[in-house]
Amino acid sequence: MKRILVTGAGGFIGRAAIAPLVSRGFEVHAVARTQASGRDARATWHHADLLAPGEPARLVDAIRPSHLLHLAWYAVPGKYWTASENVDWVAASASLARAFERAGGARFVGAGTCAEYAPSDGGCDERTTPLLPSTLYGTCKHAVHRVVGALAAGRFSFAWGRIFFLYGPHEDPSRLVPGVIRSLMEGREALCTAGTQVRDFMHVEDVADAFAALVDSGVDGAVNIASGRPVRIADVVSSIAEQMEARPLVRLGARPMPQGEPPSITASVARLRDEVRWRGGRDLDRGLAGTIDWWRQTR
Amino acid sequence: MKRILVTGAGGFIGRAAIAPLVSRGFEVHAVARTQASGRDARATWHHADLLAPGEPARLVDAIRPSHLLHLAWYAVPGKYWTASENVDWVAASASLARAFERAGGARFVGAGTCAEYAPSDGGCDERTTPLLPSTLYGTCKHAVHRVVGALAAGRFSFAWGRIFFLYGPHEDPSRLVPGVIRSLMEGREALCTAGTQVRDFMHVEDVADAFAALVDSGVDGAVNIASGRPVRIADVVSSIAEQMEARPLVRLGARPMPQGEPPSITASVARLRDEVRWRGGRDLDRGLAGTIDWWRQTR
Repeated sequence: MKRILVTGAGGFIGRAAIAPLVSRGFEVHAVARTQASGRDARATWHHADLLAPGEPARLVDAIRPSHLLHLAWYAVPGKYWTASENVDWVAASASLARAFERAGGARFVGAGTCAEYAPSDGGCDERTTPLLPSTLYGTCKHAVHRVVGALAAGRFSFAWGRIFFLYGPHEDPSRLVPGVIRSLMEGREALCTAGTQVRDFMHVEDVADAFAALVDSGVDGAVNIASGRPVRIADVVSSIAEQMEARPLVRLGARPMPQGEPPSITASVARLRDEVRWRGGRDLDRGLAGTIDWWRQTR
Repeated sequence: MKRILVTGAGGFIGRAAIAPLVSRGFEVHAVARTQASGRDARATWHHADLLAPGEPARLVDAIRPSHLLHLAWYAVPGKYWTASENVDWVAASASLARAFERAGGARFVGAGTCAEYAPSDGGCDERTTPLLPSTLYGTCKHAVHRVVGALAAGRFSFAWGRIFFLYGPHEDPSRLVPGVIRSLMEGREALCTAGTQVRDFMHVEDVADAFAALVDSGVDGAVNIASGRPVRIADVVSSIAEQMEARPLVRLGARPMPQGEPPSITASVARLRDEVRWRGGRDLDRGLAGTIDWWRQTR
């Protein structure tokens, strides 16, 4: 019996993770802070605030999962890099891991971030790129990786999926891709930086599917969850504009490049491809097309 | 008004920290898990289990300290290197730091460990020796350093005292110095390793006094709390034996060297001496003499 507890199941990635986990034969227990309509009825939903004292242990003791996919974290755009709430999630994540260990859990998979890596010219590699987070967010995520990874040794199986850049349905409207789509939908100009930054973008349903594959594998340690197909932000914006036939509304270079913006953040996906054996994923144009459709239907 | 909350105040270092903090003009609020007699009445004592959910915040909100000296941790000899309880202390320490921040606290000082450093031939230096903990204990302590240090930036002042090797009154009787003293007191042989390991030993009252100086300074980041006087373990044992006139009872080499025992763990004390301006400390023979007396009186 594979029974999985998914935290952050009401969030951007979490809501997309239910379907691939059900497909893989998991009995899915989904935790979200609030009740909401339209949730995948194949999961059993639990409403809980994991930051409330004692709540992680209460939840794990009630469900007694064999697997845990821990996606919950503070994620308010523009604030999460430096917010104190990152430290609350260190405490909650440590408590969750301890409760999972006590309940005899078998496999814990957590969500890390490319912000754990030191700046790197080539693709970030799980085994060779130095880890040197420069933000409170990256520091706290990396601390959970180290602490839960060290706790796991000899006690339970552990993997850590490092997320890069995402897009897709249900993304916060203040972020890049929804921001451009909504501007163009409304006939407004989309004011962008020059867009020369190179990033690894992955559709959120591919991210969620890759996490499900990682949970269902025995692969140990850090694994980049990324497409392996670097793209310039200018090309992401141009693809949206061309598909929406609104090229003249896009103003690349209208905004200054944020200070300290790294020129390139890309990923080696050798572990995901060769060890987890997850392949495929939408190409960017197709993923953006579906995302544009979703926003048009949501309006 | 300098009001300090001291966690772990019933412990080996904590109990010795009350007096020097009082001398420096702090209003001392001491937290211990259990009630006990013989405690320094110049502190206000609070009895609390910091691992109980919500307890760190409750305590900080009740006391509203300007300073925090966080010494509490799991410290059962022989078990603390690998015990799961280390992870509970990550959660409690993160919660404590967040409560301190919310309450407007000014300066947080925590207790780190030489086990945060990578093995090193020379003295461990706070600025140049790589940090690469190899145990769950070292990993968890280091995670708290990183997380609370990153939270502190721009919010409160933060220092992290890295402890090396200690001895003195009230040490757990199963550890090296009390073990040898008690064996010799009882006329039993003291069975030791060859004792070729070089270590930095510091009397617990000097450790506590150095922590009080660190709290009372504005020094930022990691500071080794050590004597700066490396000694072979064989020489520690020999000093005890000579002072107790029981040289023939000491059997150096009777026990095998533990696997992976580092030949040398010593400290640079330049930051403690030149920035915190803490100097002095007992020499080893005098410190051991007092410790022998204490055990003789305690028997």
